[in-house]
Amino acid sequence: MVEYKDQVLDQTYAALADPTRRAILTRLQHQEARVTELAAPFNMSLNAVSKHLQVLERAGLIRREVRGREHYLSANPEPLQYAMDWLNAYQQFWDQRLERLETFLRQQKSGTQARRKA
Amino acid sequence: MVEYKDQVLDQTYAALADPTRRAILTRLQHQEARVTELAAPFNMSLNAVSKHLQVLERAGLIRREVRGREHYLSANPEPLQYAMDWLNAYQQFWDQRLERLETFLRQQKSGTQARRKA
Repeated sequence: MVEYKDQVLDQTYAALADPTRRAILTRLQHQEARVTELAAPFNMSLNAVSKHLQVLERAGLIRREVRGREHYLSANPEPLQYAMDWLNAYQQFWDQRLERLETFLRQQKSGTQARRKA
Repeated sequence: MVEYKDQVLDQTYAALADPTRRAILTRLQHQEARVTELAAPFNMSLNAVSKHLQVLERAGLIRREVRGREHYLSANPEPLQYAMDWLNAYQQFWDQRLERLETFLRQQKSGTQARRKA
C-alpha cells in the first residue's frame, strides 16, 4: 500500500527532476504568469511547456486560474515541505552518524597516545 | 546546455521519486548491506531491486564494493546536499515573500483603523 505522504514525495521529487520545471517554479516565486510568458525564455514549443506545467500541476506545485481567455499560473510551495522534511530527516541522521564516527576516532587516537606514554 | 549542477539535481530528484529507493537509502544510513539483505523487506524480485540500485548508483547516492562474491552497498549522501540547497533557496525566497505580504496586510489594517478613528 502506498501512503499519501509517499505519493506526495513521489510526485514532488519527479516534478523537481527537470531543469525546465525548476526554472518555471523559480520564475513563479516572483509573481503569477500566463502560459505564454512562462514559455518565452525556453527554447521549446508551447506544447512542450504545457506538458511541464501539467506535471507541476498534478504534483500540486502550481495552481491555474482562468480569467477570460487567459490561464494564469501561480506557485504553491506546500508540497515542497514534505520533500524538505524527508531530506532534513536523512541529513540529521547522517550528521549524527558522522559525529559518532568522529567521537570514536578521537577516542581511538587518545587511547593510542595514552598507551604510548605508558 | 545542461550544467553539471542541473544534471546532479535531475538525477538526485529522479532517484528520490520512488518509495522503494527512499526506503533503500534509509536502510543504508545504518550500515552497509548486501543486495539480498536490501531486497529482503520488499515484495519484489531481486532483479527489480537491482534496477532501483542502479538508479541510485547512477545518481551517486550509493556506492558498491565487491568483496569476494558479494556486492556490498553503502550510502553516499553528498549529492543530496544540492537537492537540499535548491529547496532551501526556494523556501527562503518564499518565506520572504510571505513576510512582505504580512507586513503589507498589517499596514493596510492599521491604515484602515487610523481612518476609522479620524
